Amino acid sequence: MRQSLLAELANVVGEENLYTGADASDKYGQDWTRFFKPNPGAVVFARNADQVVRLVGFANEHELALVPSGGRTGLSGGAVAERDEIVVSFDKMNRILAFDEVENSVTVEAGVITAELQRYASDKGLFYPVDFASSGSSQIGGNIATNAGGIRVLRYGLTRDQITGLEVVTRSGQRLALNRGLVKNATGYDFRHLFIGSEGTLGFILEATIRLVSPPGDPAVILMALPAMEEVMNVFSAFRSRLPLTAYEFFSEEALLHVMSHTGVSRPFATKAGYYALLEFDRAAAGAASATEAFASCVEKGLVSDGVISQSEQQRGNLWRYREDISASITPFTPYKNDISVRVSSVPGFLKAVQEEVGRRYPDFEIVWFGHIGDGNLHLNILKPGDWDVETFKRKCEGVSESVMAIVARFEGSVSAEHGVGLLKRDQLGFTRSEAEIALMRAVKKAFDPNNIMNPGKLI
Amino acid sequence: MRQSLLAELANVVGEENLYTGADASDKYGQDWTRFFKPNPGAVVFARNADQVVRLVGFANEHELALVPSGGRTGLSGGAVAERDEIVVSFDKMNRILAFDEVENSVTVEAGVITAELQRYASDKGLFYPVDFASSGSSQIGGNIATNAGGIRVLRYGLTRDQITGLEVVTRSGQRLALNRGLVKNATGYDFRHLFIGSEGTLGFILEATIRLVSPPGDPAVILMALPAMEEVMNVFSAFRSRLPLTAYEFFSEEALLHVMSHTGVSRPFATKAGYYALLEFDRAAAGAASATEAFASCVEKGLVSDGVISQSEQQRGNLWRYREDISASITPFTPYKNDISVRVSSVPGFLKAVQEEVGRRYPDFEIVWFGHIGDGNLHLNILKPGDWDVETFKRKCEGVSESVMAIVARFEGSVSAEHGVGLLKRDQLGFTRSEAEIALMRAVKKAFDPNNIMNPGKLI
Repeated sequence: MRQSLLAELANVVGEENLYTGADASDKYGQDWTRFFKPNPGAVVFARNADQVVRLVGFANEHELALVPSGGRTGLSGGAVAERDEIVVSFDKMNRILAFDEVENSVTVEAGVITAELQRYASDKGLFYPVDFASSGSSQIGGNIATNAGGIRVLRYGLTRDQITGLEVVTRSGQRLALNRGLVKNATGYDFRHLFIGSEGTLGFILEATIRLVSPPGDPAVILMALPAMEEVMNVFSAFRSRLPLTAYEFFSEEALLHVMSHTGVSRPFATKAGYYALLEFDRAAAGAASATEAFASCVEKGLVSDGVISQSEQQRGNLWRYREDISASITPFTPYKNDISVRVSSVPGFLKAVQEEVGRRYPDFEIVWFGHIGDGNLHLNILKPGDWDVETFKRKCEGVSESVMAIVARFEGSVSAEHGVGLLKRDQLGFTRSEAEIALMRAVKKAFDPNNIMNPGKLI
Repeated sequence: MRQSLLAELANVVGEENLYTGADASDKYGQDWTRFFKPNPGAVVFARNADQVVRLVGFANEHELALVPSGGRTGLSGGAVAERDEIVVSFDKMNRILAFDEVENSVTVEAGVITAELQRYASDKGLFYPVDFASSGSSQIGGNIATNAGGIRVLRYGLTRDQITGLEVVTRSGQRLALNRGLVKNATGYDFRHLFIGSEGTLGFILEATIRLVSPPGDPAVILMALPAMEEVMNVFSAFRSRLPLTAYEFFSEEALLHVMSHTGVSRPFATKAGYYALLEFDRAAAGAASATEAFASCVEKGLVSDGVISQSEQQRGNLWRYREDISASITPFTPYKNDISVRVSSVPGFLKAVQEEVGRRYPDFEIVWFGHIGDGNLHLNILKPGDWDVETFKRKCEGVSESVMAIVARFEGSVSAEHGVGLLKRDQLGFTRSEAEIALMRAVKKAFDPNNIMNPGKLI
């Protein structure tokens, strides 16, 4: 970035908010996606709405590209700056602004960390249900920009379902107060919902009003061994018909081995199996008898070969770790992540088709299967062999991904269930969104951001 | 409409689907809003997606305006054709297409009547929770186009919250399959949510995939007399902290008198009061003891002066009638309807401000208060005195409405909580959506419908 422009920028945002440390590029120029080379032109710390409005106005005037940056835990490169963009970090815009005790809602700045919000809710005797492996680092603004899902979608829905109001800034530097916390508001296009999941391409999120819920009474976890992948949805049905499930997850023996070796935990039980299912339910609402009955029925039918139910909060936490630590445990292997979904009723046929294709096309690579399978969401991770270089590995994976995505398309699913599109999935978008839809996406982008300065090159 | 064009149109849609009966204008040219003079150019019965696609393509080519028409129960003129438009009635496109027993979801054509869907769900042992006074006539397509709310939003959310997929046709005659029933789909702009509440201005809804839920265990209703309007939210708090409420409604003595005189029912109990609150809860989930405790606490504090709790399904239905029959009971008085909302925590101050303003500005008119007050939604109905003509009455009401809307704006509420904007509220949109938002709404409309043929003149 030109020196004179940088000086002007410092004037606009405040010199103390322009970050030029040696680690600026590595720290603020990329997210958890490791396939792009960061190269930001500058890093700015957002401090408050007025300052961001000035920054956006300045960028629009000079046609400078802006990249929003939250906790940088993204897995599709949505927060990557590789082309001299100005990174706008929300790390320091992290205040909880208001709590409404009548509505049980909270208004927060975009940079509040997910786990902070969870703790805040808990202190109020309430619950923020959106949770996932990176909730200790991810920020609310990023969660909203990608409509983050995670482990409790089954019971509480996605990030989208918690948001009652959004304050955003558009490229012209105009602030929009979208829906303003209303339950009912039938006044045409609900731009709040358009911004949720838009990955910063229509404007940046400054604040959000979020509904909190009552905490679950007595959550309990069951972890089970499944001899065969094709039974995962039959086990789901057996439990779901008897218990109010909050989560239903699955993972493969390979995933378990990685967690054991990475974290040093031992097996949950002696029995080894090809696959494992983990579910959470509210024991206070259901009664342990229904759980025992469902489990017995699965064992009798040969769907399940072993299992354990949590008897304490600590044990519940420990069982969750088998699932939650998978992502961190495989990170050293530079995994190529496919985050795909289909309708829940299509899961059995879909898993079978993907399993066949992957077995045929990836004979040399280790595959790690896991996912929020009760939502139809499969995380299919391909690990890089130690002796392959990243670029060759990525190209090979992209080739195979094409054929996996063709299966996703055949099953009318989605090429990105919850990670977003960013840079990594952009060229795959056409597998599951039609040409007409993508053309309309471009037209909407243009309506909001004619100079293409808001996270350009991402998504579309 | 020109005769030659009509002949062409008949060719495109099938002669048998062009309706030219004497009642075409009265029956298909308007909705339940009685302030507009219907004058459609033609009425076409939609039969299937392909035919609608042909029709839209034809209209786009000739720049003919199309008005979508569902159950025509709208209260803001969204389905009114007053300028030679082609009305597209979905009355005959009313098939239930598929039921998914794994997901408990149903795919229906746009013309399915709400009560039909409720019955269908019930036959499957399930529940479609969206319900309101006009559910016997309103159609799913219209519900979606206005994001219909109704009486059970508190527990189950709006129409928006039930929709997992939408099939729509845009002005170019392109069909879009939006979200396709997926739980998780993080691939950018969620046009499903943009279409929900767009009042037919972006395209027409052909089919919807809808999530059904488990039916409530043992719903019970409590109807109570409230001496003062300002206590309505204190009563709400007292019950909500003890019971899982599915509905919380209120209405005034004037509303009750109209229902009694219109339907012939007698008072629910001997005590007269200025206001009444009606709530529904699930007795199976809560236990009657909590209800009794909440009621006793309200009586003790003087918030409630009398009450009755339903002891049977029939009595529950009868109690609901006091609230559900208000709208039909006042229809003969050509009510001018304000359907306004604020955040739930703002309701007490808002009610007070509106009450003062209305008392000052409408000394001559009868005011009927009711609404889904647990959602912050107030229906403020002004009745036409018998000796006033409609036009003078409407003008007078519009004048006062401006000052009521200014109060709504001050409380950061919405000028239309659940009826939509249509023609009636179009000029009030600016009270609660900013200029910048409205400009973006126009830009989005243009991106989807550059020739302005899809329900033109409505909403914006």
